[in-house]
Amino acid sequence: MFTRHPNNPLIKPRDVKPSRSDFEVIGAFNAGATTYNGELLLLLRVAERPIRSENTIIPCPYLDDHGDLVLKQVRSDDPNYNTRDSRLIVDKRSGEVWLTSLSHLRLARSVDGVHFAIDERPWLQGEPPYETFGMEDARISRIEGKYFVNYTAVSPNGIATALASTRDFVQIERHGLIFAPQNRDVTIFSKKIGGQYICYHRPMPSGLGRLNIWLATSPDLIHWGELSIVLDSRVAGRTGGGAPPIRTEQGWLSIYHAADANQRYTLGAFLTPLDQPGRIIARSREPIFAPEQPYETSGFFGNVVFTCGAIAEGDKLRLYYGASDETTALAEASLSEVIRSLQP
Amino acid sequence: MFTRHPNNPLIKPRDVKPSRSDFEVIGAFNAGATTYNGELLLLLRVAERPIRSENTIIPCPYLDDHGDLVLKQVRSDDPNYNTRDSRLIVDKRSGEVWLTSLSHLRLARSVDGVHFAIDERPWLQGEPPYETFGMEDARISRIEGKYFVNYTAVSPNGIATALASTRDFVQIERHGLIFAPQNRDVTIFSKKIGGQYICYHRPMPSGLGRLNIWLATSPDLIHWGELSIVLDSRVAGRTGGGAPPIRTEQGWLSIYHAADANQRYTLGAFLTPLDQPGRIIARSREPIFAPEQPYETSGFFGNVVFTCGAIAEGDKLRLYYGASDETTALAEASLSEVIRSLQP
Repeated sequence: MFTRHPNNPLIKPRDVKPSRSDFEVIGAFNAGATTYNGELLLLLRVAERPIRSENTIIPCPYLDDHGDLVLKQVRSDDPNYNTRDSRLIVDKRSGEVWLTSLSHLRLARSVDGVHFAIDERPWLQGEPPYETFGMEDARISRIEGKYFVNYTAVSPNGIATALASTRDFVQIERHGLIFAPQNRDVTIFSKKIGGQYICYHRPMPSGLGRLNIWLATSPDLIHWGELSIVLDSRVAGRTGGGAPPIRTEQGWLSIYHAADANQRYTLGAFLTPLDQPGRIIARSREPIFAPEQPYETSGFFGNVVFTCGAIAEGDKLRLYYGASDETTALAEASLSEVIRSLQP
Repeated sequence: MFTRHPNNPLIKPRDVKPSRSDFEVIGAFNAGATTYNGELLLLLRVAERPIRSENTIIPCPYLDDHGDLVLKQVRSDDPNYNTRDSRLIVDKRSGEVWLTSLSHLRLARSVDGVHFAIDERPWLQGEPPYETFGMEDARISRIEGKYFVNYTAVSPNGIATALASTRDFVQIERHGLIFAPQNRDVTIFSKKIGGQYICYHRPMPSGLGRLNIWLATSPDLIHWGELSIVLDSRVAGRTGGGAPPIRTEQGWLSIYHAADANQRYTLGAFLTPLDQPGRIIARSREPIFAPEQPYETSGFFGNVVFTCGAIAEGDKLRLYYGASDETTALAEASLSEVIRSLQP
């Protein structure tokens, strides 16, 4: 159904200039996507880490209370730390977690949607106290002429969702945290429904509860309530929102991700009526997109395809996706064909 | 500082009529408190369980999708289940959790605040899909002449916070979930501050994050945002909101709970300026109230004092609290003395 672009991956870490001379870029992925002023914009998650001089030390970067960079130095053979997951280390004694990279958001612009000019500086960088482990996985929703960017705010205070907005991608206004930890994968609808703004979100309860996709309503995009489950992970696997919902004649099309027990991330899709975003009327029974190509099956965290943004132009659907938590790639499909493939 | 009432515990499980003839009441505790129509009202958490005919079977009650009662039967010696915590059982294979009791909210009325007439029927009972494991720990806030009751909504979908409101404690309006799982111990301020409604809430992040007390703002009590941390558990222990904040001349007084590694629950207090509910200006360094009496140190879940409501009348502070997750007790103090005891 989807055709991968021959230039894939479109953006690789080495295409991105580090934000500091002592950092190297190890990921440029999970980009929010929108169109602005005749260009296609991506807000990349750029993951950086300190250039390692010593292979036996894992430097874990984070920001302190003043916003200054700190490097926690952990020996890779230190028995007190679990270092098996390439993305993080865990202190076995306390359960505390540090990330091995620090992510910020970076703007990339393109006329053809394939060749991108990537800003040399970050578009938005983490601030204490809720983004000291970085900002991840931006989604962009154009609402009433303004662009709302939600992203995952990561810190020792938890994994929460923050909101910012811009009219021109130059002046940025921050709106603080809109969902308390742990909650991420928020996708905001581009239009009000029933007089309210709508989003999907994905709380991450522990003990009781599963990784389901929930809905919320808001009068102002800042305050959210009336929470309810839309897609149950018992039905669809460990799920989370992907691209902000796409408005079509048939309804709102949502492309989401699902992970299996082996941490293999695939994409699925569901459709809701235009006036009932909480009621799924059709859904993919098998993944509509899965890791197959080498850049999808191996990399920083292999076997992952993950989208934060898809652009529909007429019947053409351009799916931008992160591959292996490392690169940004593009796959294209017929929008109507994707919708037709969903089962009631 | 606090004087326990000689009649303690004021309300015991045997004082409460079961909601079904095949149930027994095992807890009447963690009551929200307010005054209405010249009476002091408590909204008790009434925990019930099926009357056990067989001691080797643990029947775990819950509601199915239709709201009908179901009993999951687990043998107490089944090696697949962890049954050490009296409050719940855990399937070791899947991590799934069931509760050993089902809680609803029950109204109790008193003229003197000591002797209570307890309704024979539930005031509010769980409904699918977010309350199938019951409703717990109500807090009552009187706002603009209306009583808002928030409570913990427990289900396999997680531990979330729901809101209801009433003007007369007869007609009840439900407002759905206001905080996504896991989030509980919500206390709503009785007055708007800076044009917005305010609450404290206590997200329960896993992995990254701790049990901190957070603030949120709302335009309408239904939708909440602008989340920020007020009290860090690194400073105060594993904390959560207790009684809704009490307005005093010196500021908002909040009595909260803190738990240590041994699951011993004590109470602390902090003060914020009337116009800055997010800024703590004084706090107790040692617990202001701790389990000491036999009914506090032993019971269904011993070594717990936990408040959901305190009433100030002039300088008299009446602290209603749950003891050992089983009974409701009362302790009284001088409000000004409590405030004076807090350290800047």
